[in-house]
Amino acid sequence: MNRENIADAFRQLQDSICRDLESYDEKGLFRQDIWSRAEGGGGRTRLIENANLLEKGGVNFSAVHGPMPEKIAAALGLPAGEFFATGVSIVLHPFNPWAPIIHMNVRYFCMSHGAWWFGGGIDLTPHYVDAGDAAFFHRSLKEVCDRHDPEYYPRFKQWADDYFYIKHRDETRGIGGIFFDRLDGAHGHTVEERLRFVLDVGYAFAPLYIELLGRHRDRPYGKREKLWQDIRRGRYVEFNLVYDKGTKFGLDTAGRTESILMSLPATARWVYDFQPDDDPEAQRTLSLLRKGLDWVGHEPG
Amino acid sequence: MNRENIADAFRQLQDSICRDLESYDEKGLFRQDIWSRAEGGGGRTRLIENANLLEKGGVNFSAVHGPMPEKIAAALGLPAGEFFATGVSIVLHPFNPWAPIIHMNVRYFCMSHGAWWFGGGIDLTPHYVDAGDAAFFHRSLKEVCDRHDPEYYPRFKQWADDYFYIKHRDETRGIGGIFFDRLDGAHGHTVEERLRFVLDVGYAFAPLYIELLGRHRDRPYGKREKLWQDIRRGRYVEFNLVYDKGTKFGLDTAGRTESILMSLPATARWVYDFQPDDDPEAQRTLSLLRKGLDWVGHEPG
Repeated sequence: MNRENIADAFRQLQDSICRDLESYDEKGLFRQDIWSRAEGGGGRTRLIENANLLEKGGVNFSAVHGPMPEKIAAALGLPAGEFFATGVSIVLHPFNPWAPIIHMNVRYFCMSHGAWWFGGGIDLTPHYVDAGDAAFFHRSLKEVCDRHDPEYYPRFKQWADDYFYIKHRDETRGIGGIFFDRLDGAHGHTVEERLRFVLDVGYAFAPLYIELLGRHRDRPYGKREKLWQDIRRGRYVEFNLVYDKGTKFGLDTAGRTESILMSLPATARWVYDFQPDDDPEAQRTLSLLRKGLDWVGHEPG
Repeated sequence: MNRENIADAFRQLQDSICRDLESYDEKGLFRQDIWSRAEGGGGRTRLIENANLLEKGGVNFSAVHGPMPEKIAAALGLPAGEFFATGVSIVLHPFNPWAPIIHMNVRYFCMSHGAWWFGGGIDLTPHYVDAGDAAFFHRSLKEVCDRHDPEYYPRFKQWADDYFYIKHRDETRGIGGIFFDRLDGAHGHTVEERLRFVLDVGYAFAPLYIELLGRHRDRPYGKREKLWQDIRRGRYVEFNLVYDKGTKFGLDTAGRTESILMSLPATARWVYDFQPDDDPEAQRTLSLLRKGLDWVGHEPG
């Protein structure tokens, strides 16, 4: 198992997810941009814009390598050296405000001096929180985790709650999911075993999101719901540009800006001190954007 | 001259600017939020939304004090202590895409152990760069600066070019202006003298922006121009959330989020790898979003 095998596994995952999404969103054809990086490596950015159900999004693969900027190595607590990083990164923004935004990322990182780890996760950002969806989503993630280690789900769920948190709003980005980083060789874990776990997470993505899209794709909406969607999209922008470590890392290392910022929504809106007074569903959502909610044990009403 | 006198001078500046803008934008009434901060001080946020010419903006005053977070003191190269900070901060987003976005800030900062300085600046972000506007704008700022020190304009103009720069896009936010920080007591400068300069900058703001609004307020526009405006607004969001030090400082010190983020536009848009192929004026603008352009010496064509 060398780094090229891992990159190949991620490339196949990207192909598989794109196939599944395209066959579901009949109009949805990905546009592909192949790019390369002067310092080494490159990627396949697959962009979706104005499809049938999806307004904007990307399913990106990259495998890059080169000298590690010293400042970043130091921040990671690592000696200088050459790095290699490969992964699949997805953000999808649906047209219908009743359907959720979703994000998934799986990645592998290693350095010339031998350090290696996997990271990633899936999290859901509903414009309107639906308790049934949230229970389904978290139970599905728990199933994937439990197949590998019963301690994963509780740990990675809390990690997601802490990570996808908009501090200056004191609200979570959405209903969380799982987030993990630095899954390395400690306690006898092998690269093969870690890869099996992240691929399991990766292959869970398409069926999960297609189920959630299907639940809401035909639900009618109006101006009130589109406004709320744009407000929530604004919060998504705030999280990604202020807090997201992947975005920061990408912009700091002069990554490919258009591929990094494909995560941003088509539209967003900021209204001073916005209160959704005429939208009880939005009010309920606001009350549920907090850490520590147990969605697995939740009984959908 | 104590810190309360400076805060009063800034309060009067806020009043004066609001009066001028309101009498020009006839429908434009500011909504005021008075807020206070548990640790000490507060502010007057004056918000404008859906006025006649202005779609969104704020003219904010604040005067806050309290213990300085150690991390921030260290970042400023200062010993710990109590701080006091007061200032006026403005961002205005017009409806008409031919009219520019403008930003102005003047501020005073001091600490219990005696350190003090002023900072601030004015910069312009046209959705479409107009060479005549740019020359008028920069010449006006140069006049203000020259009344105080002939070295100010060239130094502060370059500072603005370097500061209002979106690194990951390799483009400036707009056509710059002036930016300055840490104008302190070095070389015999006094608080009174520094205050006179920043007030001169502050009182230049309203006539300058009213002139620029007047030049474009009735120019017709269509979907193409609104799309480009939203794209440029997206870049404004990127700058403010990724790079702007005032925004970062505010969010890090648990400032009042709604007052800090009043700088964000009502709407913004992100299109993957957007090229304004059918908009020659937008293309020309893109070619002018770079550092080091001499707008004062420019002959309007």
